[in-house]
Amino acid sequence: MQIESVDFFYLSMPVVTTDADGSQDALLVRVAAGGLVGYGECEAAPLPSIAAFVCPMSHGACQPVATSVLGQRLDSVQDIAAISASVAYNSMDVLQAAHTYSGVEMALWDVLGKARGEPAWKLLGYTASHPKTPYASLLFGDTAQQTLERGRAERQRGFQAVKFGWGAIGRGTVQQDADHFFAAREAIGTDGILLVDVGTIFVDDLERAALRLDALQQARATWLEEPFHASALEQYAALARRSGSVRIAGGEGAHNVSMARHLIDYGGIGYVQIDCGRIGGLGPAKQVADHAVARGVTYVNHTFTSHLALSASMQPFAGLADHHICEYPVQLKALAVELTRNHLDLDPHGQVAAPDAPGLGIDIDAAAVARYQQDVEIRVGGKTLYASPVFGE
Amino acid sequence: MQIESVDFFYLSMPVVTTDADGSQDALLVRVAAGGLVGYGECEAAPLPSIAAFVCPMSHGACQPVATSVLGQRLDSVQDIAAISASVAYNSMDVLQAAHTYSGVEMALWDVLGKARGEPAWKLLGYTASHPKTPYASLLFGDTAQQTLERGRAERQRGFQAVKFGWGAIGRGTVQQDADHFFAAREAIGTDGILLVDVGTIFVDDLERAALRLDALQQARATWLEEPFHASALEQYAALARRSGSVRIAGGEGAHNVSMARHLIDYGGIGYVQIDCGRIGGLGPAKQVADHAVARGVTYVNHTFTSHLALSASMQPFAGLADHHICEYPVQLKALAVELTRNHLDLDPHGQVAAPDAPGLGIDIDAAAVARYQQDVEIRVGGKTLYASPVFGE
Repeated sequence: MQIESVDFFYLSMPVVTTDADGSQDALLVRVAAGGLVGYGECEAAPLPSIAAFVCPMSHGACQPVATSVLGQRLDSVQDIAAISASVAYNSMDVLQAAHTYSGVEMALWDVLGKARGEPAWKLLGYTASHPKTPYASLLFGDTAQQTLERGRAERQRGFQAVKFGWGAIGRGTVQQDADHFFAAREAIGTDGILLVDVGTIFVDDLERAALRLDALQQARATWLEEPFHASALEQYAALARRSGSVRIAGGEGAHNVSMARHLIDYGGIGYVQIDCGRIGGLGPAKQVADHAVARGVTYVNHTFTSHLALSASMQPFAGLADHHICEYPVQLKALAVELTRNHLDLDPHGQVAAPDAPGLGIDIDAAAVARYQQDVEIRVGGKTLYASPVFGE
Repeated sequence: MQIESVDFFYLSMPVVTTDADGSQDALLVRVAAGGLVGYGECEAAPLPSIAAFVCPMSHGACQPVATSVLGQRLDSVQDIAAISASVAYNSMDVLQAAHTYSGVEMALWDVLGKARGEPAWKLLGYTASHPKTPYASLLFGDTAQQTLERGRAERQRGFQAVKFGWGAIGRGTVQQDADHFFAAREAIGTDGILLVDVGTIFVDDLERAALRLDALQQARATWLEEPFHASALEQYAALARRSGSVRIAGGEGAHNVSMARHLIDYGGIGYVQIDCGRIGGLGPAKQVADHAVARGVTYVNHTFTSHLALSASMQPFAGLADHHICEYPVQLKALAVELTRNHLDLDPHGQVAAPDAPGLGIDIDAAAVARYQQDVEIRVGGKTLYASPVFGE
């Protein structure tokens, strides 16, 4: 097959707020090759991501992503790797390129999987898709009481594991944060798996993060996620040395394999969380999973958008039975729910697995695309480089 | 002062090729505050960089760069740092943001310096701007003979130091590369300072890079620059342990302080090369310079565009007398030459220094902007988010 076209669909809720909720907009990617279509989703700012695909070349190492993708051969896993290497080199100086390409790469696996009649996880080398224990991914409440109520609601829906994130943590006192952690533990019961995500709030301030460790240990948190910004390896390592039973988690900011490797090798994290919509797609994510296995670190998906992104992000560790925790967003905005015709529902045991279906196994709802699509036009030098495509069907 | 406006001017040569020549286009930034204007330049793909400034918000950590800049107070060095921290946090998930903001940050120093009547290097804490030994930055020839001729021409123009980059290196045999290195040494004479830049050609292949060390040592290269991609810390460290008299150089790909720190602390480089048009501007670059001094590593600017970018990139190490090598591009395209009314010319000793003038000390040529400006329009949801501004004057 040859890659015939790559289309970007920028979807958005009518109102977008400053909430830490990545499902308020979406950048859907459609790739056509050999009479098939595949889909992917960038976990990224849509407009700069589109621009990085269509922009005029600045020089040999600053070429648009399109150059390395359109017209290329797509008959094997090796072809995908070759295109990825080509993007990394030709678009080296287009910083946004990794985010743009992530959605494209997903779609390449979807197409190839459909052509072969095999799920992406099989193409990645796995023999089975093991069910995972999903954790409900929630935002902390404004008050500890609200945190308690939100947590209870998810526990009652059947989630054994709950992650609380962002919100007020790190913005008030150590005691206020402790109250949230204890409320979270109370909400999910003694046997629940408690995960805490502080969304890089301590930037690179080791001591401010360390002040929260006592309460996290008392609340028996399994992990403390993203205490620092994605590149603060020294601080990650120092905190990991002091965190005792609470492991440090991170990696969602990784936009290449090296960043994730470094969090493991230099940063001492215990859980590596990869978003396939940022790291360059399934191929690089699988490399991180292999590295995590070699280093005794647990791989987890990072997903805060649609079930297309969820399926994509589950493929790279679908075959790792021991890496059984899986992020499962439960507060998605309507567009992220409606975007896909099918969803990765929980099985009777409350578990979820990457689909046993060709490619990513997710169908797109044309009406939802039409409903949420933004009208975008980019013109340079009198030439239209991008105009919102019609989804069709 | 309050930041009243930020304008982006996308300039381009009529023809842009795949040559490794970053001066074929430019993204000029103009900031107005308190009746003054300041200028900066992003070393970045212009279209995605503009998009990252104007894009609609996706969520709280994925806001356009504009949000953190427009309307902000600009009365002190601390104000600039506060804006930078705000961009890093609010635009955390806009990958392109660091490149976009780099040009803006430069312009903030230019405005503040003009308001104070002081050069940016003084605001950064230095007491003097020490003259640097400029190296002519050249591309390797297609043949060793061409490399010889290009090198001789620069030596005859008075350059004591010459850097040869990219071209055929790493694409042919080890012996062919050696021929280029020996031709380069012959061209600049026994007393010349020879620098070699291979533009990440070995990606992460340690052994292929190591095969070039013998010839580089024989040719007495001072440094081998960017053997690997910017994040290949393990390979940098391993090569540095084997490179003997040839030190490893890198850092131009750093788009935050951490990346540069890690090349020093984990990668073992001997020279850290920072482009202020990528790392987030002068403030982060100065932090890298401080770290380099503390670690016994030499700081060098990375500049392959206009003399506005050159002045900006010299400010962060202007006061470091011992860090005396300075990149000085000599094959600039017309737009990069004509963009500025004044230039950082070599003094009678063949040296160059950051200007002793307010801000960055560089004036922009309005006619050149008009001559090379690209007409760009970005529309989302029927609203024009960006239309090429008129430079005026």
